[in-house]
Amino acid sequence: MVGGGQNAFIGAVHRMAANLDGQIELVAGAFSSDVKNSKTTGEQLFLNPKRIYASYAEMADCEAALPAGERIDFVSIVTPNFLHASVATTFLKAGFHVVCDKPMTLTLKEAKALRETVRKTGKVFALTHNYTGYPMVKEARELVRSGKLGKILKVVAEYPQGWLLDKIEAEGQKQAAWRLDPKRAGASSCLGDIGTHAENLGRYITGLEIDSLCAEFTAFIPGRVLEDDANLLLRYKGGAKGVLHCSQISCGEENNLNIRVYGTKGSLAWQQEHPNELKFIPKDEPARILRRGNGYVSEVAKKFARLPAGHPEAFIEAFANIYLEAIAAIRASLAGRRGTFDFPTVDDGVAGMAFLETAVKSAKSNAKWTKFVKA
Amino acid sequence: MVGGGQNAFIGAVHRMAANLDGQIELVAGAFSSDVKNSKTTGEQLFLNPKRIYASYAEMADCEAALPAGERIDFVSIVTPNFLHASVATTFLKAGFHVVCDKPMTLTLKEAKALRETVRKTGKVFALTHNYTGYPMVKEARELVRSGKLGKILKVVAEYPQGWLLDKIEAEGQKQAAWRLDPKRAGASSCLGDIGTHAENLGRYITGLEIDSLCAEFTAFIPGRVLEDDANLLLRYKGGAKGVLHCSQISCGEENNLNIRVYGTKGSLAWQQEHPNELKFIPKDEPARILRRGNGYVSEVAKKFARLPAGHPEAFIEAFANIYLEAIAAIRASLAGRRGTFDFPTVDDGVAGMAFLETAVKSAKSNAKWTKFVKA
Amino acid sequence: MVGGGQNAFIGAVHRMAANLDGQIELVAGAFSSDVKNSKTTGEQLFLNPKRIYASYAEMADCEAALPAGERIDFVSIVTPNFLHASVATTFLKAGFHVVCDKPMTLTLKEAKALRETVRKTGKVFALTHNYTGYPMVKEARELVRSGKLGKILKVVAEYPQGWLLDKIEAEGQKQAAWRLDPKRAGASSCLGDIGTHAENLGRYITGLEIDSLCAEFTAFIPGRVLEDDANLLLRYKGGAKGVLHCSQISCGEENNLNIRVYGTKGSLAWQQEHPNELKFIPKDEPARILRRGNGYVSEVAKKFARLPAGHPEAFIEAFANIYLEAIAAIRASLAGRRGTFDFPTVDDGVAGMAFLETAVKSAKSNAKWTKFVKA
Amino acid sequence: MVGGGQNAFIGAVHRMAANLDGQIELVAGAFSSDVKNSKTTGEQLFLNPKRIYASYAEMADCEAALPAGERIDFVSIVTPNFLHASVATTFLKAGFHVVCDKPMTLTLKEAKALRETVRKTGKVFALTHNYTGYPMVKEARELVRSGKLGKILKVVAEYPQGWLLDKIEAEGQKQAAWRLDPKRAGASSCLGDIGTHAENLGRYITGLEIDSLCAEFTAFIPGRVLEDDANLLLRYKGGAKGVLHCSQISCGEENNLNIRVYGTKGSLAWQQEHPNELKFIPKDEPARILRRGNGYVSEVAKKFARLPAGHPEAFIEAFANIYLEAIAAIRASLAGRRGTFDFPTVDDGVAGMAFLETAVKSAKSNAKWTKFVKA
Repeated sequence: MVGGGQNAFIGAVHRMAANLDGQIELVAGAFSSDVKNSKTTGEQLFLNPKRIYASYAEMADCEAALPAGERIDFVSIVTPNFLHASVATTFLKAGFHVVCDKPMTLTLKEAKALRETVRKTGKVFALTHNYTGYPMVKEARELVRSGKLGKILKVVAEYPQGWLLDKIEAEGQKQAAWRLDPKRAGASSCLGDIGTHAENLGRYITGLEIDSLCAEFTAFIPGRVLEDDANLLLRYKGGAKGVLHCSQISCGEENNLNIRVYGTKGSLAWQQEHPNELKFIPKDEPARILRRGNGYVSEVAKKFARLPAGHPEAFIEAFANIYLEAIAAIRASLAGRRGTFDFPTVDDGVAGMAFLETAVKSAKSNAKWTKFVKA
Repeated sequence: MVGGGQNAFIGAVHRMAANLDGQIELVAGAFSSDVKNSKTTGEQLFLNPKRIYASYAEMADCEAALPAGERIDFVSIVTPNFLHASVATTFLKAGFHVVCDKPMTLTLKEAKALRETVRKTGKVFALTHNYTGYPMVKEARELVRSGKLGKILKVVAEYPQGWLLDKIEAEGQKQAAWRLDPKRAGASSCLGDIGTHAENLGRYITGLEIDSLCAEFTAFIPGRVLEDDANLLLRYKGGAKGVLHCSQISCGEENNLNIRVYGTKGSLAWQQEHPNELKFIPKDEPARILRRGNGYVSEVAKKFARLPAGHPEAFIEAFANIYLEAIAAIRASLAGRRGTFDFPTVDDGVAGMAFLETAVKSAKSNAKWTKFVKA
Repeated sequence: MVGGGQNAFIGAVHRMAANLDGQIELVAGAFSSDVKNSKTTGEQLFLNPKRIYASYAEMADCEAALPAGERIDFVSIVTPNFLHASVATTFLKAGFHVVCDKPMTLTLKEAKALRETVRKTGKVFALTHNYTGYPMVKEARELVRSGKLGKILKVVAEYPQGWLLDKIEAEGQKQAAWRLDPKRAGASSCLGDIGTHAENLGRYITGLEIDSLCAEFTAFIPGRVLEDDANLLLRYKGGAKGVLHCSQISCGEENNLNIRVYGTKGSLAWQQEHPNELKFIPKDEPARILRRGNGYVSEVAKKFARLPAGHPEAFIEAFANIYLEAIAAIRASLAGRRGTFDFPTVDDGVAGMAFLETAVKSAKSNAKWTKFVKA
Repeated sequence: MVGGGQNAFIGAVHRMAANLDGQIELVAGAFSSDVKNSKTTGEQLFLNPKRIYASYAEMADCEAALPAGERIDFVSIVTPNFLHASVATTFLKAGFHVVCDKPMTLTLKEAKALRETVRKTGKVFALTHNYTGYPMVKEARELVRSGKLGKILKVVAEYPQGWLLDKIEAEGQKQAAWRLDPKRAGASSCLGDIGTHAENLGRYITGLEIDSLCAEFTAFIPGRVLEDDANLLLRYKGGAKGVLHCSQISCGEENNLNIRVYGTKGSLAWQQEHPNELKFIPKDEPARILRRGNGYVSEVAKKFARLPAGHPEAFIEAFANIYLEAIAAIRASLAGRRGTFDFPTVDDGVAGMAFLETAVKSAKSNAKWTKFVKA
């Protein structure tokens, strides 16, 4: 693991997700640019002190130098956004598979370069757009794929949060500080941090590609350079329309990612805060509440569930599903086998950065309609 | 009553709303341009045959000719949209107060002219933006007015329906046919029919005025001239932002008008399909579920409730609240008293038409940002 | 109308329900034993002063003496419980049809006597177990009748309220005072007042008959003679089991009547506070959310709905449905026609009193299992 | 681990719960009475083959013979119910701490004996009444403890499931087979399996003790000896009343454990299928929806949460909380420290068995009211 020192939220999430199914063992790490923090973190995680590294570069070198059976199989990258690209590139080139937190890079250019590196090295690269790991999100995709929604007409995706309503970045809250700092977060804050999840979710479920968009960014809290709220209208190729809005200043909202997809034959609705349910309304029929763990859900939804119906699974289990598929791919790669796997790849990362770059371009031109930039 | 012949949906609603509280008696009507329909309708409503009229013009004349104690006190106009302006003008000029269904007119120009007539005649004119009659909508407005939400930052208003997903206007469904016919519905269908309710609701609750907007209209069903779906981004005066979308092709949606208002100190959410509840989340505190009929709601919400908590009130009761306030104003007018009343007026009608005209202008320019036209 | 003077809750509800559909006109009343209250009430209701009576006996006499076309067609009885039997008997014997609030009488003996009177007079007698007027309750009954639930195994009916948590009967709250006074309410308070609704609802939907029961009554608030909370276990004929509990001291509960019915092929759930929805779960399939006003509901549910889907109907509309069916029966009777009608009858009243008497018997024997008394 | 071979549901749950936080490593096991199953399971779990045992007795012996730093610290018992007591006793006597699935034993007598063994050995014994591991259940207990509900008057606890509506025990479904077999499950099936969770949850939250109860058991599916449905009325010491019902033949129900507690100053409601929320209604005030992860929840609820608000936690995380507290106690014990810990103990197991034995006694006497047997 690179990143994820003490008090880092997302590193701990990755570790729990990786632990859950007993298939992955954390054996080495460079947890922080602060060497002491890295050391303490590694010790708390029961690591062999020799494999707690002072920097990710050192880690890549030393691990690569270990015998094949002893070195790490892959690295998890959970640093702030601006480091993703260089850490990933370093490990890919050192011969390791990579699991990387999102957004993949700071810019589309970096994203394309990383894609190139992934292609050249032939290594597995998994991006933790974790919300697509939820079984009922996979069920939603199956509904669309199987034609039960007919032709998709409209997509409404939302991701409101409220935790940045106070200017906590000025009070030393680290999570807030780097997210609102253009140097570490890139050209977008709210849309990059959470809006991309909404976009990714929509793309994952519907397969629709954006043709053009109109993006209105607002920095509501005085002193912020980057937006803390974004509202977008979308035009998809093929004629569907979309509304996507996200916010980090929406008082009382926690992590309310949700999506509604309307087709000619049916519609669906899913909410991240109630992830075990998926509402499906076939045309002219009563709404069906599909629930994880039941016999009637698709094979895909079944594959990614651990517990019987009514025993709720949640965020960590969904996150772990990304890891399960990534290591299935890694195992296949190590064994020289091929296969198809269901996790977000470097292509999703590139698509996400293209979306972000298009939206930033629109926002900077006073929310003018803007063609999707080439990914 | 003018309009509301057999099989007309909205006429029956107005009659139930007017009946509910035992304060209004239907005594005369011109229910249809089809004289026979008008006659049958009137008979079924137990009217004196002499007061069932063949046309609204006749009705205005004949009623005005009756002695003061015998003639109608006011007229309810429940015709298709394109007739609202002329019927209203006729009755106002004949000395009658008016309750009129929305949208008020076909064009902003007509709306302004009607406003002028109302001002000149000094009569009461009530527009049945019925959703503002719900007690918990009034409670929402009180929350904003009392400062409990702080400064409003963002408003999300939605009004999805699904009943026009099939091309039923081609199969002789009357309700659909006039709504999608530019001659009878005006320059907008979906936004005019239901989006204006969402706009009116937002304005009623927040008091915010739109500065400019970007409106994307879509006619999803082939052969339609007017839009059956509309997505808008809004910029309010003072810096708040808004998202408003409405649809009549959203499969499975019934009449899902809903609104969320986010301020610096709190947020609220209300859904028309569960009208007795209002969610209010004060900053950093748990959500409160405010429910109609309880001792803790505001005096205004109490005034407009008939039943104790847990005995749900709904659509007709909210509609009746508009009538109750309108006739309170009419009684005051008849008695020469003044007062302030809580019902949508001709000014709301003008504002609604200005909104519609701005949105149509934006939509026609490929959804360009457009300044709010002068109302 | 007999009863329903100023500040009486249920009288006003009956009037709104009767007004709603424009089929009933209130023309006479004895609204209170307090003559002044009766007079004022009648005047506020725009009655002819001659038909505002000082007592129900006087009203029955005088109305019976009027010419056939001028006198009332039926009487609505909305007095406190202890008067129901004598008022009903008086009017039935005077030749009038009767709509009566529940519980029908104070004792089972009175109930049987009233049944006898109804049979002898041949008049229509409707008991306002209003909750069976909800369209989705009728849909629930249709689901059972059509066999979609299979054989019924278990019924859970609840009716918690919280308004008697404070000892408001000691502070002069009239509604509370008579309900907790054995002389005016009978041998049971909470179960008689609301538990009978839960029992009636269960019987209406499932058709099951109780074989024996175990009833635990509690008077939680010191000083109360009658119970303010009751928990029952039920054994139905044929082997089904039931749980029924009701309460008026359940803090925070408003009017939360709800029922769940479990069969061998499916289950259903309905909540009075969200009356437009009915959850139906066919075995091994996803839950269906059936909603009033849609094309897929039964003809019966359609017949009793006024508004399209998504335009909620509620308490008053359900109440009005009882009136609509009662007056359909009355009209048929006046016209000498026969027919089947869907409203609670004197037999339901007798069954309700038998239930109550059985429960009281059980409660008095320290909640021993008790055979259903003969109705 | 003892038990938890391939296809066993609860063993896998225990392993995931133990893995989640990276504090526990599975190093030895006797996973099945079928030696081959045990071996395969152990291999799949990456165990050292030497520490995959053929029987729990062998495991206890061999592990006890290992040097202190190498042997297991504690054992997890996840066998069918009838083995719990002997396995636990064996390991306790061999000097190991124990985490044991519920119900603790088959009989109250066994339970008391086990309690004696725990006392004598001084070892940590944790019983996985996992539902008390949910942070919002702990919040519920805090609300009661802090007096915010006042004196508790009524408790309604439910645990309906539907998975035994078909006679799957006759089709070789193992989970069903042992649960419905008196030899392996004890004198009760449904109440023992899930009803005890509801009882434990009520006791955990309210601290109330049962004085007497009336239990109606039903075996709805022909051929079953043990009940598949149970309805109970409860009388608590101090005057509170309770309703507790559980079922495994309630069509469409998944794992719907839920509880409502009504006090003189407030009420609360919690549902296992939506575990991140707790409804709290202070008297005369709006309902509060308390949600896990927010700043306003108690320190206890915070301590047992891993993720920020809106990132749902669920079943496995709650289960892991039991493990976290158990190993905190084990660590303290190993270090010779004392402390108070929040997990279900052998006393909870005894109380649960006393509850079960009382209920069985009542059920066998045709549901007569029965005094709580001495625990």
